[in-house]
Amino acid sequence: MARNPERRAALVDAAVEVLAREGARGLTFRAVDAGAGVPVGTSSNYFTDRDDLLAQVDARIHQRLAPDPSVIAELLKGPKDRSLVLEFMRDVLARAVRDRTGYLALFEMRLEATRRPALRASYTKSVRGDLVDGMDFHRTAGLPGGDETVTVLYLAMLGLLLEHLTLPGVLDGVLPEVTVPDGLVERIVATIVPDSAPEKD
Amino acid sequence: MARNPERRAALVDAAVEVLAREGARGLTFRAVDAGAGVPVGTSSNYFTDRDDLLAQVDARIHQRLAPDPSVIAELLKGPKDRSLVLEFMRDVLARAVRDRTGYLALFEMRLEATRRPALRASYTKSVRGDLVDGMDFHRTAGLPGGDETVTVLYLAMLGLLLEHLTLPGVLDGVLPEVTVPDGLVERIVATIVPDSAPEKD
Repeated sequence: MARNPERRAALVDAAVEVLAREGARGLTFRAVDAGAGVPVGTSSNYFTDRDDLLAQVDARIHQRLAPDPSVIAELLKGPKDRSLVLEFMRDVLARAVRDRTGYLALFEMRLEATRRPALRASYTKSVRGDLVDGMDFHRTAGLPGGDETVTVLYLAMLGLLLEHLTLPGVLDGVLPEVTVPDGLVERIVATIVPDSAPEKD
Repeated sequence: MARNPERRAALVDAAVEVLAREGARGLTFRAVDAGAGVPVGTSSNYFTDRDDLLAQVDARIHQRLAPDPSVIAELLKGPKDRSLVLEFMRDVLARAVRDRTGYLALFEMRLEATRRPALRASYTKSVRGDLVDGMDFHRTAGLPGGDETVTVLYLAMLGLLLEHLTLPGVLDGVLPEVTVPDGLVERIVATIVPDSAPEKD
């Protein structure tokens, strides 16, 4: 296996682009080589097979979409109430909208996972890990609502991201007073998260 | 254009299978002909182009996933409270699980819509029409909650269907007391829909 880390990252980013632009079926080593502008055959020196490439794509998008720890730390200085949950959800949304390509590639990976057991296993572990981490974070931070709240909120945000990133015209203006996506995130949080008083330590 | 309606339906159903099994990029007239077991060239006599095929796939899945009017009529005899909303959501879920192939094809169509403006326009209209119809139905039936409730519920159900149909292992057991998907639908409705008393006319 070749070990140039910058070239590896460039190849994986090219794979993310190919996934979003052409769909999972378009993801071949040859398309990745072309996307990264490297000689044909380069990818095969960096990835053992397509499942290995997909696992590295998963890890890479994860890294690209990860929250900025300093943003999270700053937000955590505020009261641990519903408005803080809204700030976190706004941050999730902003990151997804900023890296729309990465997020669309994640949706392609989900559909590809229905066809590839190895990807399904690794990707399930990764998505479930994120959800469980989200529950732990919510609990540890003392935010209102329990694991069920976090799960329902997660599903509504997943639905919002799918709708807004693939067919933005569906939600736009459907609620006359609610902007999309910002106002809608606010309505999602107000509907799902209990309006408890801020906790005092 | 050829006009044998049974053959047209068989071709469109074959296209749904191809979409779910191979992804949008695998959807060619040749693949549809092969899937339907008809001579090469048949599809090109039934569809003007790929956008026409995709529009007919949309209409066909719509029909396949449509609720049974007699089931809806029977449910509407009960009190118009939150538990009735739950019954409707259970019915949505049951239809999607029963026709998993059709639903996966819809997800493929969403991603393909990001690449094809004609599909994006027609598919947006169709999905938005469903959402607006759902709001009208909810209002006319006197179910608890307004348009915002319906929108948030719609997004959470969309997230649940995406997660459960692509990576079922993510949600399974993540809430120890909640079965997936049945118990989770109940928690979604209980979280999002107000627990108003049944309306009396």
